[in-house]
Amino acid sequence: MKISAIYAGSFDPVTYGHIDIIKRAARVFDKIIVAVAHNTDKDPLFKVEERIDMLKSATGRMKNVRVDDFEGLAVDYVRKKGARILIRGLRMLSDFEYEFQMALTNRKLNGRIETIFLMPSESHSYLSSTLIKEACTLGADVGNFVPPLVARKLKEKLGKASATR
Amino acid sequence: MKISAIYAGSFDPVTYGHIDIIKRAARVFDKIIVAVAHNTDKDPLFKVEERIDMLKSATGRMKNVRVDDFEGLAVDYVRKKGARILIRGLRMLSDFEYEFQMALTNRKLNGRIETIFLMPSESHSYLSSTLIKEACTLGADVGNFVPPLVARKLKEKLGKASATR
Amino acid sequence: MKISAIYAGSFDPVTYGHIDIIKRAARVFDKIIVAVAHNTDKDPLFKVEERIDMLKSATGRMKNVRVDDFEGLAVDYVRKKGARILIRGLRMLSDFEYEFQMALTNRKLNGRIETIFLMPSESHSYLSSTLIKEACTLGADVGNFVPPLVARKLKEKLGKASATR
Amino acid sequence: MKISAIYAGSFDPVTYGHIDIIKRAARVFDKIIVAVAHNTDKDPLFKVEERIDMLKSATGRMKNVRVDDFEGLAVDYVRKKGARILIRGLRMLSDFEYEFQMALTNRKLNGRIETIFLMPSESHSYLSSTLIKEACTLGADVGNFVPPLVARKLKEKLGKASATR
Amino acid sequence: MKISAIYAGSFDPVTYGHIDIIKRAARVFDKIIVAVAHNTDKDPLFKVEERIDMLKSATGRMKNVRVDDFEGLAVDYVRKKGARILIRGLRMLSDFEYEFQMALTNRKLNGRIETIFLMPSESHSYLSSTLIKEACTLGADVGNFVPPLVARKLKEKLGKASATR
Amino acid sequence: MKISAIYAGSFDPVTYGHIDIIKRAARVFDKIIVAVAHNTDKDPLFKVEERIDMLKSATGRMKNVRVDDFEGLAVDYVRKKGARILIRGLRMLSDFEYEFQMALTNRKLNGRIETIFLMPSESHSYLSSTLIKEACTLGADVGNFVPPLVARKLKEKLGKASATR
Repeated sequence: MKISAIYAGSFDPVTYGHIDIIKRAARVFDKIIVAVAHNTDKDPLFKVEERIDMLKSATGRMKNVRVDDFEGLAVDYVRKKGARILIRGLRMLSDFEYEFQMALTNRKLNGRIETIFLMPSESHSYLSSTLIKEACTLGADVGNFVPPLVARKLKEKLGKASATR
Repeated sequence: MKISAIYAGSFDPVTYGHIDIIKRAARVFDKIIVAVAHNTDKDPLFKVEERIDMLKSATGRMKNVRVDDFEGLAVDYVRKKGARILIRGLRMLSDFEYEFQMALTNRKLNGRIETIFLMPSESHSYLSSTLIKEACTLGADVGNFVPPLVARKLKEKLGKASATR
Repeated sequence: MKISAIYAGSFDPVTYGHIDIIKRAARVFDKIIVAVAHNTDKDPLFKVEERIDMLKSATGRMKNVRVDDFEGLAVDYVRKKGARILIRGLRMLSDFEYEFQMALTNRKLNGRIETIFLMPSESHSYLSSTLIKEACTLGADVGNFVPPLVARKLKEKLGKASATR
Repeated sequence: MKISAIYAGSFDPVTYGHIDIIKRAARVFDKIIVAVAHNTDKDPLFKVEERIDMLKSATGRMKNVRVDDFEGLAVDYVRKKGARILIRGLRMLSDFEYEFQMALTNRKLNGRIETIFLMPSESHSYLSSTLIKEACTLGADVGNFVPPLVARKLKEKLGKASATR
Repeated sequence: MKISAIYAGSFDPVTYGHIDIIKRAARVFDKIIVAVAHNTDKDPLFKVEERIDMLKSATGRMKNVRVDDFEGLAVDYVRKKGARILIRGLRMLSDFEYEFQMALTNRKLNGRIETIFLMPSESHSYLSSTLIKEACTLGADVGNFVPPLVARKLKEKLGKASATR
Repeated sequence: MKISAIYAGSFDPVTYGHIDIIKRAARVFDKIIVAVAHNTDKDPLFKVEERIDMLKSATGRMKNVRVDDFEGLAVDYVRKKGARILIRGLRMLSDFEYEFQMALTNRKLNGRIETIFLMPSESHSYLSSTLIKEACTLGADVGNFVPPLVARKLKEKLGKASATR
């Protein structure tokens, strides 16, 4: 039996927290698809193609990890891929209510798909794409939170010239 | 003594979770007024009239339930109606902080009005109007979450043609 | 329709937080029964009779409040009394998990009985009988937390001579 | 690759919530071992042998589920079995703090073992062995919470004669 | 050793909750700087100058409190001022996740600066600038939540003529 | 102004989490007293003298840290020492309810004393003396959680011979 699991999200952009979850999932399951959602509430900072590129760069060495994108419901995408497992990272500081609402709603939409929660390392328990974007806008060096390529791209889009600080 | 209780909210749109709370309240109190708020933070999806119609359709058989709308503060509306009880549904997965802040703020605004929390069935503990609207936008069949009339209206406003899925 | 509500608990001993909930309930419902549980996990500090006496002393002036005791399940007691409402105080700092587990378990045991949550004043949001007993054991003056009679009885049972502090 | 996952706990006694998690895990992983802990904080109600028997009876039809017992650390047991996955049920109403502390402590004790959280059905989100034992002691019919065999054994150990209610 | 502590925030506008924290901090530390952030997610209701004026009016009598404003990261501002302590109010009803994420992110950005949490009085545990603005928009008298000057300015910006209520 | 702060607790035994808080406090305040409580709910594993010795060994190099013990209420001890600050570590995974109840109760007992919360490093956010004792009893190597001296003493009291594992 080949067990595929799908890690869906907006990844706008990918952080060390996401990468930690991908690594853990890749050790536990046979094959991981990291799936970037087209549909997001708000305007994303990065285009789907950019988000895919950053994810590919970050996961290039993990042999059983593939990056893809999807439109519509995550559960529909999982079904189309013939998979049954949806992965979520459950940070100590994430929004449990939202995670549980989402998991239960997804279960109602497709009862054959199971949401599985993994915990990132405690060193990444506080990372959120939103907070990182905010910090970058305010001039922070975000090199501790995201891979170098992502840090560079964040700076291009959001960062101020460090000279002005 | 006639005990009236008022269940105020935006109901944009009404879900099976709201209906469950209305049913429970209607068994416990003599008379329930479901009051649709005009004022809401964000642009509502449905007009007040539409939200009232959906609520009336959903509660039509409950004899001691009436649907109304109000502008301004919920506590002012409760006072004008001569009632003293404000009902809130406290889902396991709701935002307690917000609920408590709201209840304490309301108490400060009018100390004679009491907020009372009821729990919906655990089968509705994850329902949120926001999540349902998101899911519908992504093409989900929301028939498990809202009454048929509401599902139809959500599809008209938000849904994609199911053929395209 | 006469609406009776039952506020069941161990009340070991009654605090200003409990009294605040009783007052709010007595304004909202026609008749309140405060019911002292015989069965408790741990050894209670006060006997059922003592707990009843302290409650009677604290609620003596509230005309629609009666104090009683019960054995077995709270829902069975509520049913026997012909009531349908079980009251719980939901402090900002209480153990929500426990409250919700209890409410859902009770609902499964008797679906006709509804648990209703009231919020005490924010000035009582931190009061717990357990913490008060601990503080009293350590020599604290608990006069801000419980009525004078209860403070006196706590001191008799737990308090050290204040001279030794 | 054969993926084994271990669901360790005290199961004192097994509830419908545990069984729901076992079923979900058995659909997602190749092989599940349900492992009953000898070491527990407090005196368990049932002996390890009794807990194993009840689990075997409840999971008899699930072909890829085996019941075992262990002494010492769960992570040591997982390692000895050559497995890498420790399963936990994450109820909406469970004690997250405890679950996360446990998972992080286990990770520190053995970094190669991953804890994976599954959500039980919302209908079981409130079930706890402790609360069920309390309810049974107070005379409750616990047939909605545990399988018939377990309900019978609970009644033998804890229940009062229903005639006295 | 002179211990300065900085209380940074948007203060849009200052509430009795903020003032309570400032008073407590001013009793504990030698010198407090209340620092108004230029950068905020959403459009603030009041300009930085207005927010500063309201804070100065509210803290005028506290000798060791100074009001200032800053752009960029709070930790950069703290460093420039030669301080090492960042103060946050931790309301019982605040968003812990956000507070902890922020504190840990700040620590990563500058490990020499320590975030210290103070608790406001329980009477202010429910106050949030956002909720107060909402309530004022709906016609509420917010005199219990903010100083008179702030209440007046809120009414000018948001309030309806009370005659219309 | 000399600012002393007191970090009171049971420290049964001291963990790397406690030590992290002591270090942070020692950088922020002029003088820290770590105060070991005589009174504890349950039977402590280590005697007060042992707990003091382990703390002294762990904090020996911190010049502005002193270890002491106290009986009775922490606020009374703080007052006797002429201090005004009580320190608590607020782990991401600690029991907030308990911390806040305690802080508010202490404030009511002595309004002049302020409780201040510090966050330990995220690497220590999961450490609890209780869990460490449990893990040690089950045969775990707790060298990642406590200093070597404490690990040795825990093993003497609780540990099994590793050969038997």
